[in-house]
Amino acid sequence: MKIDGVHYRTIWVADDGWSIEVIDQTKLPHAFQTVRLRSADDAARAIKDMVVRGAPLIGATAAYGLCLALRDDASDATLNEAYQMLAATRPTAVNLKWALDEMVKAVKPHGHSVRVDAAYAAASKICDDDVEICRRIGENGLKIIRGHAEVKPGKTVNILTHCNAGWLACVDWGTALAPIYMAHDAGIPVHVWVDETRPRNQGASLTAFELGRHGVPHTIIPDNAGGHLMQHGQVDLCIVGTDRTTATGDVANKIGTYLKALAAFDNDVPFYVALPHTTIDWTLDDGVAEIPIEQRSAREVTHITGRTDAGEIVTVEISAPGSAAANYGFDVTPARLVTGLITERGVAAATREGLLSLYPERR
Amino acid sequence: MKIDGVHYRTIWVADDGWSIEVIDQTKLPHAFQTVRLRSADDAARAIKDMVVRGAPLIGATAAYGLCLALRDDASDATLNEAYQMLAATRPTAVNLKWALDEMVKAVKPHGHSVRVDAAYAAASKICDDDVEICRRIGENGLKIIRGHAEVKPGKTVNILTHCNAGWLACVDWGTALAPIYMAHDAGIPVHVWVDETRPRNQGASLTAFELGRHGVPHTIIPDNAGGHLMQHGQVDLCIVGTDRTTATGDVANKIGTYLKALAAFDNDVPFYVALPHTTIDWTLDDGVAEIPIEQRSAREVTHITGRTDAGEIVTVEISAPGSAAANYGFDVTPARLVTGLITERGVAAATREGLLSLYPERR
Repeated sequence: MKIDGVHYRTIWVADDGWSIEVIDQTKLPHAFQTVRLRSADDAARAIKDMVVRGAPLIGATAAYGLCLALRDDASDATLNEAYQMLAATRPTAVNLKWALDEMVKAVKPHGHSVRVDAAYAAASKICDDDVEICRRIGENGLKIIRGHAEVKPGKTVNILTHCNAGWLACVDWGTALAPIYMAHDAGIPVHVWVDETRPRNQGASLTAFELGRHGVPHTIIPDNAGGHLMQHGQVDLCIVGTDRTTATGDVANKIGTYLKALAAFDNDVPFYVALPHTTIDWTLDDGVAEIPIEQRSAREVTHITGRTDAGEIVTVEISAPGSAAANYGFDVTPARLVTGLITERGVAAATREGLLSLYPERR
Repeated sequence: MKIDGVHYRTIWVADDGWSIEVIDQTKLPHAFQTVRLRSADDAARAIKDMVVRGAPLIGATAAYGLCLALRDDASDATLNEAYQMLAATRPTAVNLKWALDEMVKAVKPHGHSVRVDAAYAAASKICDDDVEICRRIGENGLKIIRGHAEVKPGKTVNILTHCNAGWLACVDWGTALAPIYMAHDAGIPVHVWVDETRPRNQGASLTAFELGRHGVPHTIIPDNAGGHLMQHGQVDLCIVGTDRTTATGDVANKIGTYLKALAAFDNDVPFYVALPHTTIDWTLDDGVAEIPIEQRSAREVTHITGRTDAGEIVTVEISAPGSAAANYGFDVTPARLVTGLITERGVAAATREGLLSLYPERR
C-alpha cells in the first residue's frame, strides 16, 4: 500500500542484496522509520519487541531471519538453532512456525553452498504468496461488504475492527483491512470504527495510520465503546484478523476480540474473521483450552509512549504507582460467535466442515 | 476511608465554614491535592471537568453548589438558575437531579434569610446519608463475597470491577468497592481485577490508588482482558457501580461495562451491580432506548496524561495524528445480564419486581 504516494511493503531485501529492511512499527504513528536486520538475532529481536507484528509479517520476518542465519553458517546445526530461537519469539501466532517449516523444507535438501540462495528465494516466495493471499482475502471480503452496501444504497457501511490486521500486519494489503481497502477503492462508502486496542494501541496507532494514509474514513474508539455502538445500530459488520485458528474455527486474536464478538452476537451484527490458510492450526480442536496465550510485560499496561505538543516522544506512567498489572496478549473467540471465516479460497462457516470445504486436502 | 493513615471524605465544608473542599481526582494517582469551590460555577466546573466524578459524589457536589449559589443570592430566581446549570453538567447520572431536587425541597419552603443555613444542613445530610447508604451496600455485598469464600475455603476470591465505584466516587466507602473493603477488613482473602477503564483510566488511576492505599490486593488489566480471565476461571464474580438504573433493572455505567456483563454471562460468572436508591430512575423502563449517553471530548481518547520517570506530569498524543475519535461516556447493560442489584436495603433481582420488593413504597 502507499504512504504519501510511495508504494511500500512491510519487509524487503535492502539495496545491499542481503540485509532486510522493515518498517519500525514501534515508532508509528509518530515517525515513519525503517530498521535494518543483519542477523537472525536482529530478526528475533524485531519480532519480540514488536518492531514487526501481525501474524503474516511475523512469519515473513522469521523466514528472512533464517536466511540471515544461513548466511553466517549454512550448517544443519545453525539451521536448527535459528529455527528454535525464532520459533520461541511469540507463542500464539501459528504461521510463525508455518513459515519456518516452509523454509526448512526449501533449504534442507540442498547442499550448504546453495542453501543461502534457496533460503532467500523461499523467503521471497513466502512474501509474494502472502501478498497474493491477502489480495484474494480482500476480494472475497469485498463481496460481503458489497452485500451490506446493497441493502442500504447510498448509505455508509460501518465496519468495526480490532487491533491491526492491515497491510502493516502482513506484507501488503492486510487480512481484515484488505476487503475494506477494496471496498473503498471500488467507491463503496465505508467507515471504520477502529478499536484503539490497549495496551499497545495498535488500532489507534497502526490501523488509524494506514487507513488515514489511504484516505479511508475512520474513527478511533476506546475498546470499551464497541458494545454501545452495536446496541445503537452503528455497526453493520465486524472484521478482525486472527493469529491462530483451530480446525474447528475458534480464533485467537488480539486480547479483547472475544468481547467484541460477544457484543456482535448479542446485537445480531455479523462478525467475520479474515485469515490466510497459514494461520490455521489443523492440530487443534479447542481454542480456549489449547492455544497458548502470550503474557507480556506489565509495563506495556502501566506506561504509554506518545508525543507532546512540542513534538517530543516521551513515555509516561498512567496508572497508580506500585499497583501490579497483567498483560495477556490474546484471547480466544469461540467459533459459535463467528459468522464466517474469510480466506483466500472463499468464505466458510467457522466449523470443521466449513474449513474442510475450502481445504479438502486436509480431510 | 484512609490515605496514609488520615481519614478523608471526598467532599467537606472547609475550615472557613462555607467554602467546599474536594479531592482533585484529575490529579490522581500522581498527586493528592484538594481544590476549593467558592461558587456554583466552581461546583459545575468541577463536575464537568471531572475534578469530582462518580454518581453519588456528583450529587453531593451539586448540592453544595446550590449552597454556594444561595450564599450569593437566596432568591428563587438564583435557586432555579443554579439548579439548571448544575443539572446540565452531566447528562447520564440521575442522582445529580435527585440531589438537586432534595435540595430544592429542603430550601424552598424557607424565607430567604434562613435558606443558606437550610441548604448547608440539607447538603450535609445528603453526604451523611450517602455514607450510611454505602456502608449498608457494603454489608449486603459482603454476604455475597462471603458466600464465594465459603465454597473455596482458604482460596482467594477474585473480583472484577470496572471504572471507579469506590469511596472516591461517593462520599465515603463506595458502592461496588464497599463490599470488597469490608471483606478485606473481615479477613476474607480477596483480589481485585481492576479494569483500567479507558479513556479516562479511572480504574488504573483511582480504583488502583484507593485499593492500594487501603492494602487490598489488586491487579490492573486492560479493558480488553476481562473476557479472557473469565474464560479461564480467574474471576469469581464481578461488581460494578451504576450511574442510572431503570425501574426494570437496566444499568447505565461507565462505557465498557456491557462488554464485561456479556463475558460474565457467557462464562457463568455472577455479575452484580451495587447502587444506592438515588441512582434508580423510576420513570424509565428501557435503558438502551431511554438513558441519555454523554459524549465527551475526543481529546480524552487521543491524548493521555501521565508521569515521566523524572516525575514530570505531561500530556501526550497516543493516536495517529489527524484521525477522528469518538468518546461515549457510558453504556447500558440490560437487566437480563445482571445477576443481582446490591442496594442499601438488600440484594434484589434486576427486575421491576425485584426492585419493588426492596422499595415497596414505589408500587
